Order: sequence, then structure tokens, then C-alpha cells
Amino acid sequence: MTDALKRLVPVAPAEGTSPLAPREGIDHLPAIAGVRFAAAEANVRYANRLDVMLAEIAPGSAMAGVFTRSATRAAPVLWCEKALAAQHDPTKPFALLVNAGNANAFTGTHGEDAVSQLVGEVSYHLGCPTTHIFPASTGVIGEPLPAERITAKLEELVARLSANEGYAAAEAIRTTDTYVKGASLDLMLDGTSIRIGGFAKGSGMISPDMATMLVYLFTDATIAQPVLQAVVSKLNARTFNAITVDGDTSTSDTLVMGATGHADMSPISAADDPRLVDFEHALETVMLDLAHQVVRDGEGATKFVTIVVEGAVNEGSAKRIGLSIANSPLVKTAIAGSDPNWGRIVMAIGKAGEPADRDKITIRFGDVLVAEKGWVSPQYSEDQGGDIFATDEINIRVGLGIGAGTATVWTCDLTHGYITINADYRS
Amino acid sequence: MTDALKRLVPVAPAEGTSPLAPREGIDHLPAIAGVRFAAAEANVRYANRLDVMLAEIAPGSAMAGVFTRSATRAAPVLWCEKALAAQHDPTKPFALLVNAGNANAFTGTHGEDAVSQLVGEVSYHLGCPTTHIFPASTGVIGEPLPAERITAKLEELVARLSANEGYAAAEAIRTTDTYVKGASLDLMLDGTSIRIGGFAKGSGMISPDMATMLVYLFTDATIAQPVLQAVVSKLNARTFNAITVDGDTSTSDTLVMGATGHADMSPISAADDPRLVDFEHALETVMLDLAHQVVRDGEGATKFVTIVVEGAVNEGSAKRIGLSIANSPLVKTAIAGSDPNWGRIVMAIGKAGEPADRDKITIRFGDVLVAEKGWVSPQYSEDQGGDIFATDEINIRVGLGIGAGTATVWTCDLTHGYITINADYRS
Repeated sequence: MTDALKRLVPVAPAEGTSPLAPREGIDHLPAIAGVRFAAAEANVRYANRLDVMLAEIAPGSAMAGVFTRSATRAAPVLWCEKALAAQHDPTKPFALLVNAGNANAFTGTHGEDAVSQLVGEVSYHLGCPTTHIFPASTGVIGEPLPAERITAKLEELVARLSANEGYAAAEAIRTTDTYVKGASLDLMLDGTSIRIGGFAKGSGMISPDMATMLVYLFTDATIAQPVLQAVVSKLNARTFNAITVDGDTSTSDTLVMGATGHADMSPISAADDPRLVDFEHALETVMLDLAHQVVRDGEGATKFVTIVVEGAVNEGSAKRIGLSIANSPLVKTAIAGSDPNWGRIVMAIGKAGEPADRDKITIRFGDVLVAEKGWVSPQYSEDQGGDIFATDEINIRVGLGIGAGTATVWTCDLTHGYITINADYRS
Repeated sequence: MTDALKRLVPVAPAEGTSPLAPREGIDHLPAIAGVRFAAAEANVRYANRLDVMLAEIAPGSAMAGVFTRSATRAAPVLWCEKALAAQHDPTKPFALLVNAGNANAFTGTHGEDAVSQLVGEVSYHLGCPTTHIFPASTGVIGEPLPAERITAKLEELVARLSANEGYAAAEAIRTTDTYVKGASLDLMLDGTSIRIGGFAKGSGMISPDMATMLVYLFTDATIAQPVLQAVVSKLNARTFNAITVDGDTSTSDTLVMGATGHADMSPISAADDPRLVDFEHALETVMLDLAHQVVRDGEGATKFVTIVVEGAVNEGSAKRIGLSIANSPLVKTAIAGSDPNWGRIVMAIGKAGEPADRDKITIRFGDVLVAEKGWVSPQYSEDQGGDIFATDEINIRVGLGIGAGTATVWTCDLTHGYITINADYRS
């Protein structure tokens, strides 16, 4: 049995908050047994705001991760990949150390030195091997990370570690996200109450940053590392890897999950454990909600768009067609203009480089059949499409009619706001 | 010996003409022996403007073509592919019939019927097989083409065919291009004067169109069809297929070239004919200039951007990296904002999915070395980059340092103008 998902909402909604931001929810992140957080003002780039967070995850936890596939990955990402693959000591805690304001990306050997310095200091303060530490940085590219400003705050951070500081941690990792993104879900597994929670940042911009996505997930469930990693990788493909704002990939995208095993349950140690069905479903709910929160904070976004592709030759093909639609500037601007321009969707299907048969394609807006048999549907009127596109939650459903491949992707519209955020800030 | 390229310039530059439009050039397209044009007002969608053009190309000409690879190609494109592959009658002329205002795309069986009707009527009027006729349509998608409005003008068009109507033909195929695009070049081959000329349209928009590109090229050179096709395909890859405005591919992109053989020269019938070197060079000059004219009329464009990628593992990899940079919304908005944001170029290299070694990448703006060895160059200052990005012709040069693959691509910036054209017209 799974409870309803609880979503963080801004403690104090500010001017400039995305119109698609969650409106109802909780103002703190419920504690997860075995995880403690602290946030501080380290002045990495921003003054007078939380910009660094430390998380400590209990000894014996299982850690999983997924990282950007960019060929120009930032130094902290390269470190995390190595740390994840290392042999871990079950008697020592794990840690996350994240700063906002400087991405420590494309900073040559200085970047690696800064990472070594940071993980070395955390290792000293928490008494854990450096390979138990997962650093991340988000912000400006190409400027040396002032690691000493972060290490100067470590003693304070360690002293303040608390199970109740999740909201502050989520707040600290933002760049120009217009709201804090977090979610929590309780479920019963075999009579034991389990919690899954986490937070994310993404789609905000600072000069000259890109919309880096960072995601941190936690659970008190007891689950073996290989099983957790397999579940996280699988779910990532249909949550965080199925969203797009502008098709640009950060050098720093990072997702790390820790499972502390502090709940009173026997371990899930095999992929066929029947309890995994409910656990996976709950974790997917949390991950999908956080992914949607990122899209809803997309730069300049005024509409949240769901694109379902069915009947493709296989799942990969369906997803590539979905992303071709979701990333098309002509589709995204049509949505921004409330223009039910199905011709542009035909174009985006056609350019995907995937098998498609013009005369078998169907296009639906919401429940309305728009196009079929290679032409506009005889029952369809532009007014129907216009009514649907006038809303701020738009569902587009494409049928290819040539196979069983299905995928869903999510995106937002492309507006003057995007141009203003990304082109105008230096003018 | 090759003369200087002559470029069409607007007869009457209007308000709204792209700031990047050519400023100096000729106001008519020089005649090419064996080719005649006519244009008319058929009222396909627009009133009181030329919107249909007919071209007649002399019997015995060699015809070559390249078409969109979209899986949802429009009916005229499918016809052209078939016509190009057919056996041709050396005693009969060829024809081009192009309308603006309606793309005859995604119009089901009606679309094919309309094409049959059009080519049937042209065949009757010009006395040539239907497989000698290359139709194209550009404009609204998904609406039935009123073919009868075009056929009603055929008699008038045939009567007005003239070698001197090239400018009118170029004018007639525009949708919302802000200027007429044409170019002409003379060269001496073995003591014979040869002319290559042509025109293009592209990057204009009409609701709900996409920026279809149409290109028509002509020469009086004598060249065997397989040789001409091979040259056109090769040059297309590094001219029209190396430009991008928004990464969206039309369902109707078409390039057709006719070589009439009316010049006094012995035929070029083999790929190793030494005269091909000069011919190819001249044809590339014309094609590249027309391709650049399309970019310069990109929707909302205020800057013309050349991206050179060198040192990739091979040419295909270099081109994919170049297009990843050229299509990145974050790169394009940075250029719009005159922001020399090299971090976004690092990002776009990284996301291309191609081999790259962070520490071997070099980035240059104009002649200024910006980044090397995985970091910003010590000599580089933001002021240098800012001065270069403040101009409206920007050169970006990326070195991968891991191979010999090179490619050049061209694009424009992404501005509020693009959003206004594509999102605001229905609001």
C-alpha cells in the first residue's frame, strides 16, 4: 500500500516563480532514517544564500548513481563514477557534498585538484574513505572552483547535520531554479513502513551555465546495491532521461541514490523479490514527480507538455520520435502560441530518422483525433485543437501503427522567456 | 578561370527584410542557354503576388536532384524521386512546376491525385513525358492543394516562357522569405564560357508551415547525368546539408539541377575529367552562396555564424559535432545576446555523442584562442570574445585534436524574432 506523494512547495513563493510550479504540498522534507543534512552559506559565487550542502548517509547503505554521458563531463562527475565503482567499507558512512554557483567544469587539472581537496576534507571530518563521497558542482563553467570557501564551512556543516534539514539542502543546490523541488512517499512493504524521498534542481540558468540537473534520492529500505542500481538505471530512462527543456545536455548531470536499510525489513537482494514491484512503483512515482518538477521550472516555460508515442517499431524508436517532437523548436513555439499546429508534429515525426509510414500515423490532442490515414481527420476542427492548446497542460498522442513500441516524454514550450533568460542577461 | 559570383539583391528592399540580406548585386538572373522561366499569380493562398513558376529545360538535358530524407515526405517529393529514377527521352524537354502557399504535404491520397493532375497538364502543354516533370509545393501543410488554380494558369505560363524571367521565378516560390535568393557565376572551361546559376527559397514561415528549402540550379555545361548527380550529391552534403536554422527538417526540401549542354563543349562524361575540378569549384561557390543566403534569412536571424570543426575522428563526426553546436538553443541564444559563452560550446561538443577528449579541445573565436588543455586559455580575456560576438559575422573554430576529420557548418542566432514569427502569429 502506497500513500499519496507529498511534494515540496515554496515556503515563500517569490515573484518570478514559474507559473507551472506546484501549488499544494509540504514545506519540509520528511526525515529518512539514516540520512542527515546540513546547508550553509559558503559564498562560492552568490552572497547571502545557502549554496553548499552536505549529506551523510549511514554506514552499510547501498549507493546507486547515473551520470551525464557528455564527452566533456565535469571533474566531480568523473570522481563520482570512480567512487561508485569502488569497493565500499560497510562500517563507514557515505557523503554528498554539493555546491551551487560554480560547476567546476572544463577547469583542466585544477578541477581535479579541487575535487581531491574537497573529498579529502570530507573524508577527514566524517571518517569515511574518499570513495564514499559523491561531490557535485553546478554553476559557472570554466572558472576555478574556490574549494577553500567550501572546506572552510565543513566543520560548521558537520556540526549541524540533522535528519530535518532536507529542505535547506534542497534549497542550497539551486542555481536559478525558481522553486525548490522535492518529494516524499511512504509505502508499506511486508508490514513495514518504508519512505522514499529526495530533491532535485534543474533548468535554472546562471551565466554562463547550462541547465544542469542534480537529483538526490534516499530511502530507508534495505536493498542490495546491484538491485538498487538496476532499478535506478531502469527508472531513470523513463523519468529523468525522458524529459527535455531545450535538448541541451549538461556536463554535470548527476543522480545519486542511497538506501540506508534502517527500516525493519529483510533485505531485498534479488531482482525477482516480489516486494520490488511495489518499491519500484513508489520510486518511479517519486522520480517522475521530480522530473516533472524540473520541466515545470523549464526556462521560460508556460505550458507542461506530455507526448505519448505508440505503435513504433520498438521502445527506443518511440522515444527518439517523442524527443524529436519534444525538442523541435517549431513544435515548442507552436505550443507557446497556443497554436494546434499538427503539421509541425508530422514534420518532427518525419525528421526523427525512425521508421514511419505517413498513411498509418494518427495524431491526437487530448482525446481528440486530429490526423489519420495521412491526412487531417474529417471530424476534426481547429477550434477543438485551439481549446486544448489554450490550456497549460497539453497531451499529444502519436500513433505510428507499425509496431508495439511505446514511450512517453515530457517537455515545456519555447517562449520569449527562454530567449530573455538565455540571450538577454548580458545586454 | 572563374568570374566573381553575382548575387541577386532585392529590387525593392522592404521593411522587414533580414538585416543580413545581401546588399550588393544584380537585379536579374542572367539567362542560361536552354532554360526558360515564367511566373504567374495563381492565388493558391496569397492574393496579388506571384505564387507559381514554370521552368522549361531543353531536351537532352541531364537532371540531378536531392530530396529531404523525412519519413513524412510530401507528395511532390515522392513524385520527383520517381521521376529522377525514370528513363528519360532525349528529344523531350524537362519542366519544373512550383507553387507557394500550400505544401501539398500530409494530404493523403488527395496529395498524390493533385500531383498527377499537375504533371499531366504540364506534360500536355509542353509535350514531354510526366517523368520529365519535377513539381514542388511549399506552404501550409495538411490542406488540399487547389491544383485547378495552378492548371488554370498553365497556358499563360507556357506562353510567357522566357530566358529572362529567372528573377520572377525566384520571386514566385517564396513563402515568407524576406528577400529573393539567387546567384550566377561564369567560368571558362577549355576556352568555352559556361554559366551556372540558380535560386532558392527557405527559412520563411507561413502558418502552419515549416522552413521548407527549395533550390533550383541550372547550367549550360554539357555533363553526363551520373556525373552531374554525383557532383550535386557531394556538394549538397557540404552546402545545403551543412546549414541549419532550427534543426527542423521540412517534409518538402528539394534540390533539382538541370544541365542543358547548350554550351559549345565536348561532354564531361567521366568522374575523372580534368574539367570537373573547375566546374565543381564553381558549382560549389554558387550552392554555398545560396545556402548562406538561406541562413541569412533565417527566422529572426541577426547574426551569421560559421562553425569549423577540425581534428575529429572523421568527417562525419566533425559534422555531427558542428551541427550539435549549431543547433544548440543555449549556444544560439548566447550568440543572440553577444555573449562569448564558450562554456556552452564545451557543452554542445560534449552532448554530440561523438569521440572527444576534454583536455585536447581547443576553441577559437575568430583568431583568438579561447580555450585549450581542458581550460580557458591564459591569454584570453572576455573583452576579446565580447568584441567578436558584438559583430554580425561570427566565426567559431573547434579543434578536437584526436584525428583528421574536418567539417564546416553555418547557422544563425536564436532571437526573440524567431519566437515572434513562430509562436505569436495566432495570438
